[in-house]
Parts: sequence; structure tokens; C-alpha cells
Amino acid sequence: MRTYRKELWLNLSTRRGFVNLTPQVEACLRESGIRDGMVLVNAMHITASVFINDDEGGLHHDYDAWLEGLAPHEPLDRYQHNRTGEDNADAHLKRQVMGREVVVETPQTLPWARDARCRARLGLSLEARRAGCYRLKLERILERRD
Amino acid sequence: MRTYRKELWLNLSTRRGFVNLTPQVEACLRESGIRDGMVLVNAMHITASVFINDDEGGLHHDYDAWLEGLAPHEPLDRYQHNRTGEDNADAHLKRQVMGREVVVETPQTLPWARDARCRARLGLSLEARRAGCYRLKLERILERRD
Amino acid sequence: MRTYRKELWLNLSTRRGFVNLTPQVEACLRESGIRDGMVLVNAMHITASVFINDDEGGLHHDYDAWLEGLAPHEPLDRYQHNRTGEDNADAHLKRQVMGREVVVETPQTLPWARDARCRARLGLSLEARRAGCYRLKLERILERRD
Repeated sequence: MRTYRKELWLNLSTRRGFVNLTPQVEACLRESGIRDGMVLVNAMHITASVFINDDEGGLHHDYDAWLEGLAPHEPLDRYQHNRTGEDNADAHLKRQVMGREVVVETPQTLPWARDARCRARLGLSLEARRAGCYRLKLERILERRD
Repeated sequence: MRTYRKELWLNLSTRRGFVNLTPQVEACLRESGIRDGMVLVNAMHITASVFINDDEGGLHHDYDAWLEGLAPHEPLDRYQHNRTGEDNADAHLKRQVMGREVVVETPQTLPWARDARCRARLGLSLEARRAGCYRLKLERILERRD
Repeated sequence: MRTYRKELWLNLSTRRGFVNLTPQVEACLRESGIRDGMVLVNAMHITASVFINDDEGGLHHDYDAWLEGLAPHEPLDRYQHNRTGEDNADAHLKRQVMGREVVVETPQTLPWARDARCRARLGLSLEARRAGCYRLKLERILERRD
């Protein structure tokens, strides 16, 4: 059994953003040489999410507006967490809605890429206190020996 | 190590619905012959969710009403995603609340089925543009050789 | 390949609460002797959540108030599920927001513990009908033989 692990770092210049990670994950899959297994992709930061959904700009706008409605960034004193000197309490809430991780099977191509009807892409939602550096942990485990 | 994979297809005649997948997953477990491992059950469609909770009609009604409150289907122009010609932007949002996948351990019987106090069943929440055909991917991996 | 499984029981005296499970999970990791694998930590109860986020009192207050806003406990007759004689319909909804399980990789120390910037801890959100007894299932699977 082989395992493979990689940390991805992302820099965004905006407080919130969406990044399509599918190409990077696919590159990791190729690099690992594993053909039958499972991938765990999780955000290393607790205000970031890894999720699978449509990589479509309108939807990203909708997610952003919706999350802001569910957990508004301001007023900052709405949240006790911000008394710690941080101003990202809302991002901790938004992250719970969008989720922390995805677990997907790993054929040679990612499963959703094989479905022509499905434009879903692995995405990342970030809410940074400042434009920062975020780590994603990718781990693919478990290769079947054919 | 053995692995097992199966795609399940479901047809619903309604726009939204809940399906108890536990019997199908249990049948897959039996078919696989794997006794000690892990199951990944994930929705192949990005407006569908796989989750574990109570298979109780009242609760399904509550979920449906609650999700509609959090992310109303109408007015359609509330969402930029619907400018693509689709009308299911709300379903992409609802899916994030309910989640995409579950990972469960795989004893001979599913774990929650052993707990008499727990009526939880694996469920599926669907939001279809039309009554459609949905694929669920079930993958059980990892058998311990006793 | 080794696998390891443990059920954790927790008693809380309050209807809702947050418990930092990281020390218990780390103890399980040590006990298992597994150094390269994956941990599945999931709530056995369908109104409980296992999630990873900041173990900070202000944030826990914010989560609690936010979830109560998204799915209020009262009035009880707001939910059809409560017609079954239970009064915890809201907890079934809250659990979907916070999630059921986490899957994390398992180096010798948990990954987020290695990141000095990250105070994230494995947490548990509970909503009990009464102060009860909750089971968490921890399963670590898959050890690489170096």
C-alpha cells in the first residue's frame, strides 16, 4: 500500500475568494502514481473550506452573498470571538456551512470529471483576516494492488 | 486489501425528496464481502446530499421547510447562477448545508443500526431541475485481513 | 495493515455544550501505535456533531447563538418532528450545519497541532433532550508499513 501526501499553499489578495483546486489535485494524483484509492483534501486553516460544487462565477457570487447573509462580517462586536483581537468570527461560522474537507475516490481521473453533465470542481472558500497564506493538505491513501 | 465500488441510480418524480439508502448500502456491504473497512457514500450530483439522520417524516418536512427558508427557490432572479439558464441555484446552496458525503466504518452491520436508540438512516436529499436520474457513488475500501 | 477502533462516551449536564476531544483522540492515537494513517471521528448520535475549529470560549458562544438563530429551539410546535414526543427537532437541523464527522490524517501528532498558528481543536457540539450519554466513534484505519 502506498500513501502520498502534499501540502498546497495558496495566496489570495482578497479577503474572500474561490479557487478551483482540481488541476492541482489531478497533478498530485499523477505524481503519486496511485490509481485506486481515496483522496482526503482538507483545509489546514479553520476559516477555509474545501468543497465540491460548480465552478461557475454566478454561483460563487451567490455563495458569497448567501454566506454573508447567514453570518454577516459586521458589526464586528456582534461576535464575542472578535474580542480576542481577531475580526474573523463570521468566517469561522461560514466555514461550518461550507465544510472542511472532501473525501473522494481516486480513479485515474477524478470521478466528477468523468461525468459530462457535471461541471463540479473542487473549490476552496477562503476568508482571511488579511490576504494570507493558506495551506491545504492533500492526502491520497490506499492503492489497490491489481 | 479488497475494494468495492458501486454506482446507485435513483429516480424521483418530485423536485425535492428524501430517500433512505440504508437498505441499498447494506446490500452492497453484503455483496462486497468486506467485514472490516470504511464506506464512502457520496452524491455524484452537485445539488444532492448524502447524510445520516433520522428517517422520520416530520423531520424530513422540517428539513425541507428550513432549507427553503435558508435558501429560497424563488424569486429565481435572486441568484446570479440562474442566469446560466438553470433554475437550481438554491439547490447548490442547500446542498452545502446538508453535506455531500458520509464516511462510515463498516462492520457487518452499519454502526448506527446497532444502536437501538438511534433511528438514524442514511438519507439523500435531492433537488432536481426536473425529476431526474441521480447517481450515488458508494465505495467501500479497506478490509482488514484477520 | 492495522486498524483501531474505540468508542468514547461523554456526559454533559447541559442541553448544549462543546467538548474538546483532541486529548482523547491523541491518546487513542498513541494507544493504537499507528503512525501513518487516517482517523475517522464521527458522532454516533444524530443530534451531535464532530468538527474542527477554534477551541475559544467566545467562538463557542457565537456558534451557539448563531445556530439558535438559524434553527430556534422554540416554539416547539414550529417543527413537525416534535409531534413524535421529542423536543429536539432543532438539534437535528443544527447538526447538519456543524457536520457529523471529520476525517483527518494521522501522523504522530495530529496535523493541526503542528501548526503553531492554528489553535483548532477537535470539538463536539451536543444538543441533548436531557443531559445524556453520547457515544463518539473513533476509528483510525490504514497504517503504512515503512
